[in-house]
Amino acid sequence: MGTLTFGFLNRTVVMTSKTTFPTLPDIRMAHARIQPMIHRTPILTNSAIDHLAGCEIYFKCENFQKVGAFKARGAANAVLKLSSEQRSRGVATHSSGNHAAALARAASAAGIKSYIVMPSTAPEIKKKAVESYGGQIIFCEPTLEARQRTLDEVVADTGAAFIPPYDHLDVIEGQATCALEIWEEELSLDALVAPVGGGGLLGGTALTTHYLAPKCKVYGAEPEGADDAYRSFQADQLIPMKNPKTIADGLLTSLGNLNWEIIRRYVTDVLTASDEEIIAAMRLVYERMKIVIEPSCAVPLAVVIKYPAYFNGKKVGVILSGGNVDLGKLPF
Amino acid sequence: MGTLTFGFLNRTVVMTSKTTFPTLPDIRMAHARIQPMIHRTPILTNSAIDHLAGCEIYFKCENFQKVGAFKARGAANAVLKLSSEQRSRGVATHSSGNHAAALARAASAAGIKSYIVMPSTAPEIKKKAVESYGGQIIFCEPTLEARQRTLDEVVADTGAAFIPPYDHLDVIEGQATCALEIWEEELSLDALVAPVGGGGLLGGTALTTHYLAPKCKVYGAEPEGADDAYRSFQADQLIPMKNPKTIADGLLTSLGNLNWEIIRRYVTDVLTASDEEIIAAMRLVYERMKIVIEPSCAVPLAVVIKYPAYFNGKKVGVILSGGNVDLGKLPF
Repeated sequence: MGTLTFGFLNRTVVMTSKTTFPTLPDIRMAHARIQPMIHRTPILTNSAIDHLAGCEIYFKCENFQKVGAFKARGAANAVLKLSSEQRSRGVATHSSGNHAAALARAASAAGIKSYIVMPSTAPEIKKKAVESYGGQIIFCEPTLEARQRTLDEVVADTGAAFIPPYDHLDVIEGQATCALEIWEEELSLDALVAPVGGGGLLGGTALTTHYLAPKCKVYGAEPEGADDAYRSFQADQLIPMKNPKTIADGLLTSLGNLNWEIIRRYVTDVLTASDEEIIAAMRLVYERMKIVIEPSCAVPLAVVIKYPAYFNGKKVGVILSGGNVDLGKLPF
Repeated sequence: MGTLTFGFLNRTVVMTSKTTFPTLPDIRMAHARIQPMIHRTPILTNSAIDHLAGCEIYFKCENFQKVGAFKARGAANAVLKLSSEQRSRGVATHSSGNHAAALARAASAAGIKSYIVMPSTAPEIKKKAVESYGGQIIFCEPTLEARQRTLDEVVADTGAAFIPPYDHLDVIEGQATCALEIWEEELSLDALVAPVGGGGLLGGTALTTHYLAPKCKVYGAEPEGADDAYRSFQADQLIPMKNPKTIADGLLTSLGNLNWEIIRRYVTDVLTASDEEIIAAMRLVYERMKIVIEPSCAVPLAVVIKYPAYFNGKKVGVILSGGNVDLGKLPF
């Protein structure tokens, strides 16, 4: 069997055919570990949406999670698993999204420093969020090269541990606690649907479900304009995304390597929706459920409505991943 | 003592100094009565908003109520208290707001007819809501006179019972069940704040609180541009609103007579906020709590933030009254 090596700067993950993914006890322990730093989010139902979709939907509301997204789980788990020696040097990442805020908050709560590399062009609101959680922002030019170089420099200067947004076992283990809470409710779901960008949430969801409810189908929901998981799944090999274009701005990233290895093993299928279908689902959630979600978060409901052949008459879990949306730019 | 007489077309309420407002047993019985037709809505907290407001706020989320507003309570109670003879002839009202949808739904659930008089200019979405709940719409010209005349005709033709939106003891009794649920949580609140338009919710809230927690202060929250309750309270006499103008479109109506009699007795004070302050509070709820509310619903939080002298360091209940907002016209 081949060997994949990922250089994570100050930690190297070597994945072989024997790579150990988080086990059920690992995920349970992660849940206990991050408990003081996260909300146990509610599961909501809505009869009007059920009627429309022709199935019984249970919405796990991670839009109500700390920092407004499931990312709080993985970041907290990764930070809390650091050795005290690593903690003394802090954590670093490059992100302008929910992971940046989640890592800054988790670090701050653990009493350690965080260094967040952000493009100088990042929206003011994202900068403020990171600052409000006590993160130190290091600006870079808005190119992938500048981002990586700046992160390398920060890590070299500070010795901080790089915590990537999804391609990391501790992050995946943290995201897996969301499905753990779902399965603890004993809803006898036939299917569970999560959005897929880098694959942290979908990977974690698939792992937990594999352990606790192996008969439940797990679907990834992806925008048509960033359908690398769909195409990878069809081709049975990781195909990176080039030039993604979708309103679901949290799902623009390509699948991570570790995430792909989990997804190809434990996910039933990947389904896609157009931006128009995503916006319609998003609107439905605002109008009927009276809750605020970001576009990425509406993709699972969009595919559940789009593919009745998969979901009709079933009990379906849908993970609403986050609620951080620019209110001035709602698509309706 | 004087006698006030209100002609409710097919029922006449005579209020004397001995007028009996709903008692605590009445309110408890109403709660049991409407239970199958309403949600027990959740009470949410938010540490970021607490920090900003300098107090501990408990949000009673009636935006998650059936038909998206507390109005479901009063309409259900009024419908279920009709005699079987009255039921056979149905119910009628004039409204283009939440009460219309709530009455149509309550009637439909009770298996009786509802006739809703609406101006021909009412937004399409409001018409559709009433129709979707099985209400029969009768259009009229968009004037107060035409509205009243059309309602009179409908009632004369059908014998339907007129259920007004707030100036009605059964409606007030129904709205009073919202505070009942709050007090059942035993939160030891120092203050409770509800929005005030016609005074159904504030009246009911004040009554229940008078019975169950007489030391708790009850505040009405009103837009500056529709401040008849504030002015009535200052003058200790009912002063109707002329030419109201505010973004809080659910609070444009003048206080009802019965509502005023309760409010003057049992409400501690009425506080007002400008449209700008209302929009800022509304935005805060969307951004921090990730829930959808209508502008009227943001007025209580706006006054809590505006008047720290009243609320600083206190435990404050805030009733979020509804979430029916035109998403295409959000003020941010």
